[in-house]
Amino acid sequence: MDERYLHILNKDFKNYSKEFCVNFINSLSGFKSVNLCGTSNKDGVSNLAIFNTIIHVGSKPPLMGMLVRPPVVQRDTLVNIRETKYFTLNHIHQKFYTRAHQTAARYEIGKSEFEVVGFNTYYTDNCKAPYVAESEVKIGLKFREEHEIKSNCTILIVGEIIEVMVPKNAVLSDGLIDLGITKTITSSGLDVYWAPTKIARLSYARPDEDINVIG
Amino acid sequence: MDERYLHILNKDFKNYSKEFCVNFINSLSGFKSVNLCGTSNKDGVSNLAIFNTIIHVGSKPPLMGMLVRPPVVQRDTLVNIRETKYFTLNHIHQKFYTRAHQTAARYEIGKSEFEVVGFNTYYTDNCKAPYVAESEVKIGLKFREEHEIKSNCTILIVGEIIEVMVPKNAVLSDGLIDLGITKTITSSGLDVYWAPTKIARLSYARPDEDINVIG
Repeated sequence: MDERYLHILNKDFKNYSKEFCVNFINSLSGFKSVNLCGTSNKDGVSNLAIFNTIIHVGSKPPLMGMLVRPPVVQRDTLVNIRETKYFTLNHIHQKFYTRAHQTAARYEIGKSEFEVVGFNTYYTDNCKAPYVAESEVKIGLKFREEHEIKSNCTILIVGEIIEVMVPKNAVLSDGLIDLGITKTITSSGLDVYWAPTKIARLSYARPDEDINVIG
Repeated sequence: MDERYLHILNKDFKNYSKEFCVNFINSLSGFKSVNLCGTSNKDGVSNLAIFNTIIHVGSKPPLMGMLVRPPVVQRDTLVNIRETKYFTLNHIHQKFYTRAHQTAARYEIGKSEFEVVGFNTYYTDNCKAPYVAESEVKIGLKFREEHEIKSNCTILIVGEIIEVMVPKNAVLSDGLIDLGITKTITSSGLDVYWAPTKIARLSYARPDEDINVIG
């Protein structure tokens, strides 16, 4: 490795501050799927929190996953999902990313981030959890399974997509949602927000065939 | 929901083509952490594959997760990780995203995508799996645990970060890696690649405190 590179081994992390390690390691996965997760408790009190640990799990059945932190302190989102079995994921539009970030603050229990931060709830008959009315892409999910990551006690929640609301003009004829039209943002680390510009859509990769730009 | 929105329920997916559903559902998580995963089998034959289902799992211990598809056909990456216990994740630079996409082609077993697609392997003494020499951010991981998602038989692999190589000029004093300097790209759906532009880095969110732009 030439001098231009920093080479950190696992055992070296102890020589850095906790802040350095948290920022550094949070940067490593690259850009993140960041969404607002809406839930409500059994009394109907709504909750909203920003999550950057969301993955596509599968298309048939339609599944998404979200990693949540250990339940050592009150974690409203996790408690609500276990209680009601429903949650929503809502894309973050460029125009409200600051308010989305603010949902990460530790408000007292029973205080709805929707109200405090200034988002409107939107409910449908199909989902017990609230959507963010202002979000251009709204995804309703029903709890399917959870897995505890033993190495650090985080929990992977897997939900089945029960409904989606998305602007018609953002959905291409083959189903792809153009995230440039929905003005969805991405994040890195814990606190950096980015607006992506499309480079290209590429053709299906096959051995001995050249890749073409298709969009 | 007003007329501007497409509202799809779970039961409606059967009315759309498989291609539509795959593209649509793959778009829902938002922008993805896309990386090249390097492995080798027990005979030292290298393998390289693009993955867009990668999440940050935790900082202490430093952990990352990657969801892999069911092992119904030969899945070199999964077989190699189980066999050798090591894998690498390598950021995709704007200058080689087309070649990165090409690694998704189904090459015959025993054929290294490094050679076919034109990346150089880079090895260290700490990791049995090969890095992508051309990649600006190289992460070495050791297998820690795996979880089968019962809903669709996919497998979440969790690895502990054993070493990282990253350009010194991209690492800020507080540990954040500037993914604009490393020219890391992101993806959406199955085949769209994007170059993000930074909007802002925001201050830590606290109740009753305004969010400030800090970078």
